[in-house]
Amino acid sequence: MKKIIALGIIALSLAGTASAQVKPEEQIKYRQAGYSFMSWNMGKIKANLEGEYNTQQVQAAANAIAAIAGSGMGALYGPGTDKDIGEVKTRVKPEFFDPANGPDIGKIATNFNTAAAELAKVAAGGDKAAVQKAFGATGETCKACHDKYRME
Amino acid sequence: MKKIIALGIIALSLAGTASAQVKPEEQIKYRQAGYSFMSWNMGKIKANLEGEYNTQQVQAAANAIAAIAGSGMGALYGPGTDKDIGEVKTRVKPEFFDPANGPDIGKIATNFNTAAAELAKVAAGGDKAAVQKAFGATGETCKACHDKYRME
Ligand code: HEC
Ligand code: HEC
Repeated sequence: MKKIIALGIIALSLAGTASAQVKPEEQIKYRQAGYSFMSWNMGKIKANLEGEYNTQQVQAAANAIAAIAGSGMGALYGPGTDKDIGEVKTRVKPEFFDPANGPDIGKIATNFNTAAAELAKVAAGGDKAAVQKAFGATGETCKACHDKYRME
Repeated sequence: MKKIIALGIIALSLAGTASAQVKPEEQIKYRQAGYSFMSWNMGKIKANLEGEYNTQQVQAAANAIAAIAGSGMGALYGPGTDKDIGEVKTRVKPEFFDPANGPDIGKIATNFNTAAAELAKVAAGGDKAAVQKAFGATGETCKACHDKYRME
């Protein structure tokens, strides 16, 4: 079971022995922090697409999303992080930890990384229509995971 | 006063009209999320420096820190975010919002951005000694801000 979870983590992204030292409750907080910070940056890109477009701001926001996506968040779903720990609440669904879903989660995570990297790439170019498209595609990958693996 | 805060925000990093829509309590949460996620990544780099060194993991962590540092967090210190808002607690010191400290905060933020960008640069190279040095320098810039502007 431990091994299967470890495999799932690697599938999600890169994992390191180093991450093992992080307590389960800290893992939950860090993953929520990562998602929360990405959502701030998605919101900024959305506002830029709907209003005045500032290439530098969109680029910085897209870089943050791509770098967070690529930072190995899979390591923050270690053993013991599948349910609330005291005051630290989690909205992850138990399905996320079902080994049978490993391939599906791996695919979702890979799509997410690819979409975020593409968003950062086009944001650097400053072509608003291309950013609009890549932004939509990235949002789809967030939603793909939430629909299946995050509680309401 | 509003104008002075706005200037401080620009000094800290880039700001955009788009960010104005974020509620004060959300700004506090997002900035804490950004710092928290950076600290996870600093911890990973530290663990790599002290143990088995994985270039890919260090590089990914450094990229996340640099991209978050460059994402314009200054916009998350808008009016009304200088003290607790209901359940949303903040540890920022009032001194952070004193216009007289604007230049000092601007300097600290610039040093922080520069150090984080340098860390990402050397991490891509994989020279452990250079990463050690840049990691130490980045940590100093976190500390420089906390010593003056964050409560215990
Ligand atoms: C691989 C799956 C996955 C992907 C991809 C994903 N999320 Fe999530 N997200 C989750 C899970 C699971 C949670 C619940 C985490 C918890 O509470 O422990 C979550 C939580 C969140 C939260 C709430 C964080 C908090 O403060 O509690 C936000 C906001 C969020 N995601 C936004 C995003 C955005 C924006 C993206 C894409 C840019 C994204 N997510 C991509 C799985 C994912
Ligand atoms: C420009 C000033 C500044 C810099 C630079 C800075 N911090 Fe902070 N940090 C703060 C302030 C202010 C708070 C309190 C935020 C709040 O509670 O609203 C904080 C809070 C934090 C927290 C607690 C977050 C939470 O969950 O409440 C951590 C962890 C942290 N910082 C780590 C770091 C690390 C690591 C770095 C560098 C890589 C860094 N900080 C750089 C000012 C800074």
